[in-house]
Amino acid sequence: MAATLLSPDACAALSHQLPLWAIVDGKLTRQWTFANFSEAWGFMSRVALLAEAMNHHPNWSNVYATVTIQLHTHDLRGLSSLDRALAEAIDRITPA
Amino acid sequence: MAATLLSPDACAALSHQLPLWAIVDGKLTRQWTFANFSEAWGFMSRVALLAEAMNHHPNWSNVYATVTIQLHTHDLRGLSSLDRALAEAIDRITPA
Amino acid sequence: MAATLLSPDACAALSHQLPLWAIVDGKLTRQWTFANFSEAWGFMSRVALLAEAMNHHPNWSNVYATVTIQLHTHDLRGLSSLDRALAEAIDRITPA
Amino acid sequence: MAATLLSPDACAALSHQLPLWAIVDGKLTRQWTFANFSEAWGFMSRVALLAEAMNHHPNWSNVYATVTIQLHTHDLRGLSSLDRALAEAIDRITPA
Repeated sequence: MAATLLSPDACAALSHQLPLWAIVDGKLTRQWTFANFSEAWGFMSRVALLAEAMNHHPNWSNVYATVTIQLHTHDLRGLSSLDRALAEAIDRITPA
Repeated sequence: MAATLLSPDACAALSHQLPLWAIVDGKLTRQWTFANFSEAWGFMSRVALLAEAMNHHPNWSNVYATVTIQLHTHDLRGLSSLDRALAEAIDRITPA
Repeated sequence: MAATLLSPDACAALSHQLPLWAIVDGKLTRQWTFANFSEAWGFMSRVALLAEAMNHHPNWSNVYATVTIQLHTHDLRGLSSLDRALAEAIDRITPA
Repeated sequence: MAATLLSPDACAALSHQLPLWAIVDGKLTRQWTFANFSEAWGFMSRVALLAEAMNHHPNWSNVYATVTIQLHTHDLRGLSSLDRALAEAIDRITPA
C-alpha cells in the first residue's frame, strides 16, 4: 500500500474516525495504560506484527504498563493514509 | 523457587486445581485456539516473560492460531511445584 | 504473493537451495539450538514478524534453547513457493 | 534483589563500568541503531525478558531500527544497583 499524504479535510476527519487518538506535534498519538508490563508487552508484540506487515513503523515508547504510540510518515513529512490505516489496525487489537 | 517433585496425591489434585489442563504422557498439557496468529503471539509473548522470570520453560508449539503448552520438570523426571505454579500463572494471563 | 505448489523438480532442488533444511514427513524442517531461552526467543520474535508479513505461518516448537520449524502449505497439501521464500527469509535472520 | 541507591562515588564509577552508557537527565541512557526493525525488535524482545525477570523495567522507545533505553529507579528517585545490573545484562545481549 503506497502512502498518500492526507489532505487537510482528511486530517480534520481523523478526530471522528479515530476518536481515541489526538494529533500532537503533527503526529497521530494515543496512549494506553495496562495492568502491568506483561499486558503492555503482549499488546506491543501484536503492534510489532502489524507494523512490520504494513512496513510502516511507529515512534513508540513504553514504561512499565504505559505505552505511547505516535504515527506520522517521515518520507512525506506529514500524516498519510498509512498512519490512518495503522491506527485503525491498532485500535482493533486494543483489549476491550 | 526450588522445584520439588509433586507427590502422587498432589498430582491427583491437579485435575481440580487446574481443570483446563490434562496430564498427557506425564506432562501437564493445555491447548488454546485464538482468533488468529496475532492473538496467539500476543499470548505467547506474555508466557515467555513468565517462563523466563520463573526460569522454568515450557515445551510448546504453535501453528497459526493454536498454541499447545506442555510442562514437566526435566531435572526431576516428573511434575513439580514449578510446573503447577507456571500453569497457574499461564491460566491467569489467558484472555477471557 | 500467491503460493504455487512446487514441482517435483523444484522440490528436489531445495536440498541445494536450502542446505540446512530437510524434508521430513513432507515438511521443510530445520532445528536450531541457541545458548539459552533468551537467544531462542529473540530469534522466534523475528520469525513471527516474517511469518505475519508473508501471511504464511510455521508449525514450530520450542523448548528452552531449541527451536524447530516445519513449513508446508496446508491449503495446497504440499510444499509451495511460500515455504521456500519463508525458509530463505528465516535463514537470512539466523544468527551467524 | 533489593535496589539500593548508588552513592555519588558509585555513580561516578559507572562511566568506567558501563562505557557505552551516559547519564542524561539523571538516567542511565544508551541508544542502539540496528539494520532494520526486525533486528531492533529481536533485541527488544530479549530486553523485555530481562526486565520482567528482574522486575525492573526500562523507560524505552523505538523508531524503526533505533532503540533508546533509559534506566533509573523511580521509587528511590535516582540510580540504583538495579539500574546498573540491568544495564550490564542488556550489554551482554547486545549483538556484537
